[in-house]
Amino acid sequence: PDWSLMNDTDELKLKREFSFPDFASALAFTNRVGAFAESIGHHPDILTRWGLVEVVWYTHKIGGVQQGDFLSAIETELLYQREN
Amino acid sequence: PDWSLMNDTDELKLKREFSFPDFASALAFTNRVGAFAESIGHHPDILTRWGLVEVVWYTHKIGGVQQGDFLSAIETELLYQREN
Repeated sequence: PDWSLMNDTDELKLKREFSFPDFASALAFTNRVGAFAESIGHHPDILTRWGLVEVVWYTHKIGGVQQGDFLSAIETELLYQREN
Repeated sequence: PDWSLMNDTDELKLKREFSFPDFASALAFTNRVGAFAESIGHHPDILTRWGLVEVVWYTHKIGGVQQGDFLSAIETELLYQREN
């Protein structure tokens, strides 16, 4: 839920914002998403802000989203639901 | 060097992009900046991407930048230069 497909300077990207009670828990989630990204060798953009993490999955090589991005979004969602 | 003052939806913000050789070293820098932010109780926006970290300091309460943001930018710069 709450993922959106956005057009960012002609690249389609899959984006969601996650809420947290403070900065430390937001940064901890950033690190969990980062560890997952390293494990699959595919890396999203992750914006960390006090109380918020925005995760953006896309495949720069094709200028859009492909199956791996959708699967990564699902996994990101599971990471969040598991711990929040 | 390389910090810019940008206008983001009517809020002035102090921004710089830092380069890294890969995702892991970018995320490590994000964590260093995050630890500094926690130590001063003032938190920037941090965008982590493969090979890049963008740090944005501003004070939401005043809708702009104040002395603490400039000092935080300088400290961020030192964190980067110390390790890169």
